[in-house]
Amino acid sequence: MVVAMNAEILAVGTELLMGQITNTNARHISSRLPDLGINVFFHTVAGDNPERLKSALGLALGRSDIVIMTGGLGPTMDDLTKETVSDCMGRPLVLHEDSLARIKERMAKFGGRRMPASNSKQAYFPEGAVILPNENGTAPGCIVEDGGKTVVMLPGPPSEMCPMFDDQVLPFFMKYAEYCLKSKYVRVFGIGESMLEEMLKDLIEAQTNPTLATYAKEGEVTLRVTARYRNPAFAGAGGAGAANGAAGAGGAGGADGADGADAPAAAAAGAGEAERDILAPVVDEVLKRVGANAYSTEDQELAEVALNALAERGKTLALAESCTGGLAASRLTDIPGASRVLLMSAVTYSNEAKMSALGVKASTLQAFGAVSAETAREMAIGARKAFGSDMAVSVTGIAGPGGGTDEKPVGLVHLALADSAGVRSKEIRAVGPRSRIRNVSCLHAFDMIRRAACGLPWIG
Amino acid sequence: MVVAMNAEILAVGTELLMGQITNTNARHISSRLPDLGINVFFHTVAGDNPERLKSALGLALGRSDIVIMTGGLGPTMDDLTKETVSDCMGRPLVLHEDSLARIKERMAKFGGRRMPASNSKQAYFPEGAVILPNENGTAPGCIVEDGGKTVVMLPGPPSEMCPMFDDQVLPFFMKYAEYCLKSKYVRVFGIGESMLEEMLKDLIEAQTNPTLATYAKEGEVTLRVTARYRNPAFAGAGGAGAANGAAGAGGAGGADGADGADAPAAAAAGAGEAERDILAPVVDEVLKRVGANAYSTEDQELAEVALNALAERGKTLALAESCTGGLAASRLTDIPGASRVLLMSAVTYSNEAKMSALGVKASTLQAFGAVSAETAREMAIGARKAFGSDMAVSVTGIAGPGGGTDEKPVGLVHLALADSAGVRSKEIRAVGPRSRIRNVSCLHAFDMIRRAACGLPWIG
Repeated sequence: MVVAMNAEILAVGTELLMGQITNTNARHISSRLPDLGINVFFHTVAGDNPERLKSALGLALGRSDIVIMTGGLGPTMDDLTKETVSDCMGRPLVLHEDSLARIKERMAKFGGRRMPASNSKQAYFPEGAVILPNENGTAPGCIVEDGGKTVVMLPGPPSEMCPMFDDQVLPFFMKYAEYCLKSKYVRVFGIGESMLEEMLKDLIEAQTNPTLATYAKEGEVTLRVTARYRNPAFAGAGGAGAANGAAGAGGAGGADGADGADAPAAAAAGAGEAERDILAPVVDEVLKRVGANAYSTEDQELAEVALNALAERGKTLALAESCTGGLAASRLTDIPGASRVLLMSAVTYSNEAKMSALGVKASTLQAFGAVSAETAREMAIGARKAFGSDMAVSVTGIAGPGGGTDEKPVGLVHLALADSAGVRSKEIRAVGPRSRIRNVSCLHAFDMIRRAACGLPWIG
Repeated sequence: MVVAMNAEILAVGTELLMGQITNTNARHISSRLPDLGINVFFHTVAGDNPERLKSALGLALGRSDIVIMTGGLGPTMDDLTKETVSDCMGRPLVLHEDSLARIKERMAKFGGRRMPASNSKQAYFPEGAVILPNENGTAPGCIVEDGGKTVVMLPGPPSEMCPMFDDQVLPFFMKYAEYCLKSKYVRVFGIGESMLEEMLKDLIEAQTNPTLATYAKEGEVTLRVTARYRNPAFAGAGGAGAANGAAGAGGAGGADGADGADAPAAAAAGAGEAERDILAPVVDEVLKRVGANAYSTEDQELAEVALNALAERGKTLALAESCTGGLAASRLTDIPGASRVLLMSAVTYSNEAKMSALGVKASTLQAFGAVSAETAREMAIGARKAFGSDMAVSVTGIAGPGGGTDEKPVGLVHLALADSAGVRSKEIRAVGPRSRIRNVSCLHAFDMIRRAACGLPWIG
């Protein structure tokens, strides 16, 4: 039988309880722990209040093998995380000279001023802690192991927390995991979640190891295929894994694995299975069935896949956006290196702009309207010509909430793509609020780019 | 002495513990409860596991007056929220005929199929519950009051949860609140958080009622001014407020009010103070000191303020974006009605596009480079001329991570604004990752638009 460790994420900060910020750290940590076979059973948020924080930590230590705390490592009196752990675990705070030197150095570099006394607080840690240097901020993190329990303390800002967790905490736990999980994320556009489940029904029903689970995002679906392997880095008995294993709750793998709901790998892999690649054959079978609708097995965004498809072929792109209002260009230019592909995007909201910047004919606008296949086609052709790109894509539609009619309701969007092979167009009817209509329109545009660039079948 | 109720938000769902989604519901609820004088002391997330959910609910009922649960109201066996409340509070689930009729009606309208048996589960509620109809989905919410405790059950999807909470749950609690809080959010651009605190030092130090608190967001600062008033809708003794009042923890107002950290109104307002407007004079004093750097007292985004400033004056806008890559246009067109103001945005990533679409001179690009005040000015002038707008704004800079030099480092951004008064430019040096540099650049562009449209002093 596989015994799994379970973890709780305890975020500290009154700003979370006041609703000033969202606890994105909990999501980041939660999404990564299942790969190590560590179950997350609870998230908790407590404020900067000594008694309540202490009670929350005591509770977490009582019910979880691993407690991962975020926040409360700052220099002020309100920052209580290390003090509370010190108190609960009976380990006095001691100065870590290396950290003090690093903090001083950092303060000198940024700001060029002398270090306020309060910052030295950030160089004190519970005795015996493993120190986690902070490459992106002042407060180092730390890990304390005691009595079969492990407490990890990380800074609150996600820009500091995420790299510290990925680069230092995950490898730390790796050695304690007897089994580890390996996942592939097959990302699918153009097939709904229930249809995808239908296509993979026999695989989903027969799943033991690997397991399959679908989840839907706005306009797209991700399929997670997860296999359980024996961990080659497993340190054997003696570590936290062994010490805590017996205390781990029933389910194997995944948060609330015992529920069976989305447990990514319920079956224990035999020792012999460890070396065999059991993930690839299932992913291959999935890809065979899903075909060109699968756009990534590396959990990449569709925008990135589309951009890379052009970049790899040395092709350039122009966009002509109406209802998406710059969102498509913004998504593509989020990706470093986009400038090698995207020459120009014309956000032509008005009819005048469509005519002057893209050469759409007044007669076309008059006869068919701004939201029509004809206008979309002229926009794409015009953008390609005006900006001299290999490919051009246009989007024109009604994003709402106003502007819809019976004939052309909110959500009606026309797209077109022009390249050396000519021009093709596509009509979609998106549902939901303005932001969703804009987002789904962008996804369709990116999918058209990907298909055209890769020579995949066109979906009209 | 003011006694305040305290609340805990208990989100239910394995998808939260697996890191598939972020608990944005907790933030939404948390941000609204302080206005009713209800403290939020804990957030908890538990999965779709019967025992752990029961233990989390038991714990919440033990330490909190109000437990607000989100999620787990769906039609499947995994949805356990009402069942667990029923179990913990000893109230059997009973059918609510009206809800069943509404669900059937909804199923018939969307999908046009007969209702699966499992959906009728959504019409059962703990005996005696107040039912909260769902205007945006299938699952109704409900509220159960028992033994001085109140449990609110809400659907998980934010698009259903948020309106149900705002329109039905807040008014429900309103009648129980002896005091309520009223806040104004003064949003400030162009002054850092510590500088702002310095400018308001005496007000912050002397605060009793109203209270002031600053918090920084990427590139901007929000000042919250919160006053405590006697609640005119207070129902008096007998309701949950009275029943639970004695159990409320010490601090008055705001999550973790007892900490003093960001308690929005620590002082109890005397009965006589109730009718007097104590908020406006403090906000006025703040605005007097902060001047034109304050861009909203209604918690509006800077993009919206800028767009409205033009819309109110019947002025039109064109954008010429390089490093922001469509982000500025996308932010403005997020706002319904943007089409009346924004005629066109040219995302001119390449030098060729800057020349062909905007008429930037080759000699300017050669002499000063694409990232220069000179190029920014020609981009703005060119966009205004090419697209025939009243005003045009340009952004050109180095968003990184690559492309920086000693002379022109990552984060260097030039902006320019052209209108009937001529052309003005501005240089900024943003710090941080690509996304932050792009965001801060957009904020500067919006602030320039706001200042020029309103005739406020220009900051060079």
